[in-house]
Amino acid sequence: MTKDYVVGVDIGGQSSKIGLVDRMGNIVAQEVMRYGADSPRQYKENDAELFIEDLCKYIGRVVESVGIDSVQGIGIGAPNANYYTGTIEDAANLLWAKGRVVYLSQGVSKHFNDIKVTITNDANAAAVGEMTYGAAKGMKNFIEITLGTGVGSGIVINGEVVYGADGLAGELGHTVAIRNNGRQCNCGKRGCLEAYASAIGVARTAREWLEADLDKKMGNGRESSLRHLADITSKDIYDAAKEGDPMAIEVFDYTAKLLGYMFADFIAFSAPEAIILFGGLVKAKEFLLDKIQKYMDDEVVSFWRGKVKVLPSSLKESDAAILGAASLAW
Amino acid sequence: MTKDYVVGVDIGGQSSKIGLVDRMGNIVAQEVMRYGADSPRQYKENDAELFIEDLCKYIGRVVESVGIDSVQGIGIGAPNANYYTGTIEDAANLLWAKGRVVYLSQGVSKHFNDIKVTITNDANAAAVGEMTYGAAKGMKNFIEITLGTGVGSGIVINGEVVYGADGLAGELGHTVAIRNNGRQCNCGKRGCLEAYASAIGVARTAREWLEADLDKKMGNGRESSLRHLADITSKDIYDAAKEGDPMAIEVFDYTAKLLGYMFADFIAFSAPEAIILFGGLVKAKEFLLDKIQKYMDDEVVSFWRGKVKVLPSSLKESDAAILGAASLAW
Repeated sequence: MTKDYVVGVDIGGQSSKIGLVDRMGNIVAQEVMRYGADSPRQYKENDAELFIEDLCKYIGRVVESVGIDSVQGIGIGAPNANYYTGTIEDAANLLWAKGRVVYLSQGVSKHFNDIKVTITNDANAAAVGEMTYGAAKGMKNFIEITLGTGVGSGIVINGEVVYGADGLAGELGHTVAIRNNGRQCNCGKRGCLEAYASAIGVARTAREWLEADLDKKMGNGRESSLRHLADITSKDIYDAAKEGDPMAIEVFDYTAKLLGYMFADFIAFSAPEAIILFGGLVKAKEFLLDKIQKYMDDEVVSFWRGKVKVLPSSLKESDAAILGAASLAW
Repeated sequence: MTKDYVVGVDIGGQSSKIGLVDRMGNIVAQEVMRYGADSPRQYKENDAELFIEDLCKYIGRVVESVGIDSVQGIGIGAPNANYYTGTIEDAANLLWAKGRVVYLSQGVSKHFNDIKVTITNDANAAAVGEMTYGAAKGMKNFIEITLGTGVGSGIVINGEVVYGADGLAGELGHTVAIRNNGRQCNCGKRGCLEAYASAIGVARTAREWLEADLDKKMGNGRESSLRHLADITSKDIYDAAKEGDPMAIEVFDYTAKLLGYMFADFIAFSAPEAIILFGGLVKAKEFLLDKIQKYMDDEVVSFWRGKVKVLPSSLKESDAAILGAASLAW
């Protein structure tokens, strides 16, 4: 009985989601532990032990809620998580893990009689989830790209996630899309793919194009329904594109070109069967995915042309983080 | 006795080298089979069977020359070789394999009572050789970059060469170093790393800079001892740099910058312990390697800064191809 379930945990900046998952990928029970700005619960620096204690209470409750007393293992997806060491290292969005190394795996494992706890970063967890339950079922070589507030990646080669020498491999959001005078990225570098192709990056493209003085060639005096918005989100751009707004369509085209060109380089590295896209932006299929495929095939080495598919994730977005984390535990 | 030796074969455009190698990496016997323009032996299209037959004669002779009658296995490094299928696919430099698929592994294996024959491309063979006998001994994650007439790569992750979904992974010479108006590359793309960082690419940089009309900002009227040469090779540039020629030094600096920046992206992919450089250009250590390390550390994501080493291959260049191929056979 207990061998039939694992726990998947998705640790985020505002909340953590805890789910009990069966072998078919059904989430049979779940809870959300909130600690964002609007929650009475808050974790400050040095609160790592308190966080782990609370997290374990939630895990215990979710497991007990379906009347079982133990599980096969626990998988955790978290920012800056290191698969090798079981630690979270200097995670900017988690105050309790800022500027320090937190032994998360060990802490949780100890609480549950040394059960096996596996952690990795969000994008790697998504890749494992995709391979176990999603669009990459049956694939041994693929790259999962998460297009969210950032751009993350999980690389699978021969059926295994690539962790590299230090456990931190797969940071394709920080390969350089624009080499000269590229945008400042949060990581400190300039021109990173993430600065252009994340939800925030796409919105930034639209805002820059509308600011006529910034770049006279693009957007100067251009008519766009986006011009009337106080703030622009990637969703606004998608909505405008669906209404036929030419600039919104061009913003996606530009994003697709940068992604497609970079994907061509990624293919030269690991020759994957497919590149699978996950996250909110993927909804913009007709404006983004189909064009990425086209630009990628334009730029890839000829013997891969037409052979590598750009696919949307088939994981339900709300479940994916839990499922990905859970997949680690099998 | 026979378990103590393997055969390593390096198939090139002008000749093939066949060596008998022991477990310590000593080449105990070797022969060269010549078929270049100045040789009486020539292979034309449709001569693949003849080539394989002759190659097997040489292999047999090398093995017999030390008084043994069989070996553990045969490893072959060849252009466009596919590890999965054992084939050479449309190799431009081998007339007998041009525009067709040659079943090389199968042909050689059949000749020697179905002995195990393993083939891969030159750069992957160099990577395996480096891991078995060279600078990557003990490393499980590294990237071998071959800087020769082309730029090749062999990527090792978790102690295994990356072959990808189709056996053709690891074409880092054809990732894009110059995105806009880059040089035409032999592969059909523009701006590939190979078009700048190969021996031919480096010579091309010097020639372009000397042609003042081509680029007035660089090289216009610049004094260089290279200006007096009828043709410029990468060796000429190295010799001039050693004599203090400023343009020659700057050519290497420019090459190092392109390599270093691209290496920063490669690190984001697989987080290797080291990037190991192989080939004639590597001799230019003070002008090239040290600067690659500097530019790479300038551009890499901060948590890898100072952690990934750029190292010269420690394989003797004349032996490396045989040793690399031989390593495949263990």
